[in-house]
Amino acid sequence: MSIVQRAGEQEKLDWLRLIRTENVGPRSFQTLMEIYGNAGNALQAVPNLSKKGGGQIKPFSDSAANKEIEALTKRGDKIVLACEQSYPKLLREIKDFPPVLTVQGDLACLEKDSVAIVGSRSASANGCKIAQMMAADLGKAKYLVTSGLARGIDTAAHNGALQSGTVAVVAGGIDVIYPPENKDLFYKITENGAVITEMPLGSVPKPQHFPRRNRIISGMSAATVVVEANLRSGSLITSRFALEQGREVFGVPGSPLDARCKGPNSLIKDGAYIAESAEDIISVLQNLSYMRPTGLFDKASNDLYLAPAQKISEDDVDKARRVVHEKLGASPTNVDDIISQTGVPANIVMVVLLELELAGKLDRHAGNKVSVYSFDNDLFGKAL
Amino acid sequence: MSIVQRAGEQEKLDWLRLIRTENVGPRSFQTLMEIYGNAGNALQAVPNLSKKGGGQIKPFSDSAANKEIEALTKRGDKIVLACEQSYPKLLREIKDFPPVLTVQGDLACLEKDSVAIVGSRSASANGCKIAQMMAADLGKAKYLVTSGLARGIDTAAHNGALQSGTVAVVAGGIDVIYPPENKDLFYKITENGAVITEMPLGSVPKPQHFPRRNRIISGMSAATVVVEANLRSGSLITSRFALEQGREVFGVPGSPLDARCKGPNSLIKDGAYIAESAEDIISVLQNLSYMRPTGLFDKASNDLYLAPAQKISEDDVDKARRVVHEKLGASPTNVDDIISQTGVPANIVMVVLLELELAGKLDRHAGNKVSVYSFDNDLFGKAL
Repeated sequence: MSIVQRAGEQEKLDWLRLIRTENVGPRSFQTLMEIYGNAGNALQAVPNLSKKGGGQIKPFSDSAANKEIEALTKRGDKIVLACEQSYPKLLREIKDFPPVLTVQGDLACLEKDSVAIVGSRSASANGCKIAQMMAADLGKAKYLVTSGLARGIDTAAHNGALQSGTVAVVAGGIDVIYPPENKDLFYKITENGAVITEMPLGSVPKPQHFPRRNRIISGMSAATVVVEANLRSGSLITSRFALEQGREVFGVPGSPLDARCKGPNSLIKDGAYIAESAEDIISVLQNLSYMRPTGLFDKASNDLYLAPAQKISEDDVDKARRVVHEKLGASPTNVDDIISQTGVPANIVMVVLLELELAGKLDRHAGNKVSVYSFDNDLFGKAL
Repeated sequence: MSIVQRAGEQEKLDWLRLIRTENVGPRSFQTLMEIYGNAGNALQAVPNLSKKGGGQIKPFSDSAANKEIEALTKRGDKIVLACEQSYPKLLREIKDFPPVLTVQGDLACLEKDSVAIVGSRSASANGCKIAQMMAADLGKAKYLVTSGLARGIDTAAHNGALQSGTVAVVAGGIDVIYPPENKDLFYKITENGAVITEMPLGSVPKPQHFPRRNRIISGMSAATVVVEANLRSGSLITSRFALEQGREVFGVPGSPLDARCKGPNSLIKDGAYIAESAEDIISVLQNLSYMRPTGLFDKASNDLYLAPAQKISEDDVDKARRVVHEKLGASPTNVDDIISQTGVPANIVMVVLLELELAGKLDRHAGNKVSVYSFDNDLFGKAL
């Protein structure tokens, strides 16, 4: 997609409608944009696509989207599309970037280079002190500090960077403050920084929302620093996202006798950088090419959405549908294998899979794999 | 040198006399052995060599050496030569291995694979607990635990491995217990393990003795583990020796807020392994080829001392002396440069340097470099 200073009102409405549409996620949003060139066209295509996949999805309604926009505007919040200048530039580069963000606070801070500081909710006093010091020092060095508004390390990191600017990525709607005891912190953050989310107004965060949220924390940041974390913890999920996203991971070392240090120590064991101070982080980031203003990423993303839409003949899709369906099963199958084994062109396979996804029958997995729930016999015949 | 089960009485006497001779250190001991084939011949050569270098060194006397041996025997201590089976096999491979060790306790334990655990004298309770646990677990896995009998981490490491066997390398004579509060620990160590030193009976440890001692701790061990250590500390010197000796270095991670963790954290930053438990250490050591019984090192060292002595003509040395002297100065000079610039054969240069060393006029430095103190004009003429 080409990056614009600000998107128009209609574009904002269309993007919001498309991403709020049932069974449309960040990945299928991108596929729809690639095929139909813009959100308006994609919205028109959704009913027919889902029907072909055996479902009956309707686009998120114009009025509901308008209602969300009005409510946000009334609250003083903003909507930022992934194609807009204020959208975090590194976030736009991850494979499942959120197309639309809701922002409360200072939009401009999102354009700064970000470092994520995450860690245990039940952190030690020392751990919190380190997080706060690192955040303050990163702030002095002009970095944005990003975290998740949780208790413990997150809270300390935000507190350390209140003056310089910090971003809290939350797992629920922008109007749902969680945990409730961080209400004051929430508002302090929005003074020089921002609270952001991809979730609609009013969404109450559920356990499965936190990993999704974590991909945004690491995805908008050049580096993720884990201060204290148990071996099975959300912070380690965030660091795993960071690695998958090609970003740097730092662990703050700690005593082997403290279970909360097992997380960062294990990261260091596996090759993460060791961070004793903000300086350790900055010295690594200053040597990264993608942290320079003329990065690779902006260039690459300009080619992402090639409007006008690709010309895909409906006839071709109709002919290919059955042979693609036959390759699918409950076990994840590589999409490239489907293409090579069926001989169906990649863009046609993409549409068939999108149909099933919109119909709620297809799951996407890591490594470009897909699986399907059991098919409806009436739609696809006995053979399936 | 070829390894023997036990050296004869005369050989022990000769080796002890040679290493106790003024200006003879571990490196010149080796050079003398290489040239003269055995310690007896080397002792005879010492007076003339030192005279040629402008000094007047006499070999350590027969009676004084016999007195030391008798005193040691009376105490129940043993003398172990580097050519004997009980001498720590990895120690024999370092460039400045001590030719003679004095041992109180169990000789056999020195043949086990050793791991050194070192750290701060003013260690934290947690640090001591970790050192003790690691030592106990390494002991259970049949490793010898080596340390320096100091307060703090050393004491904890020895305590953890009292049952399985631990070695304390001390900086003074075997009869000088330092620090005095570790008297009980000293005797407990000798029950299943040993206390060892290269220093003569009665030597009181001085500050400059500790780094020398540290090279033995790391040199006899496959790995050195630093538990807590300030940035400028003896433990980091030990770890530097370990690296120079081609051994493994482990750091136990700790809080950046504790100055005692800066040492191991900095080691990890520089590429040392991270050790949270004995398991981390063992898993690395099990994959090292030189830890296997048929290692490279024994084979290499068999060729070290090529008896009978090399035939070096005194005339050749006399002719070459002046031209070699002219190349020397107060700044360290590479021995290879002296050889290539003078055209004098390497073994002749070696003898000329040895003469100066025995005369107390030459210092050896890292990287095969030597420097000299100001020469005596009467001996070498105005030109120098």
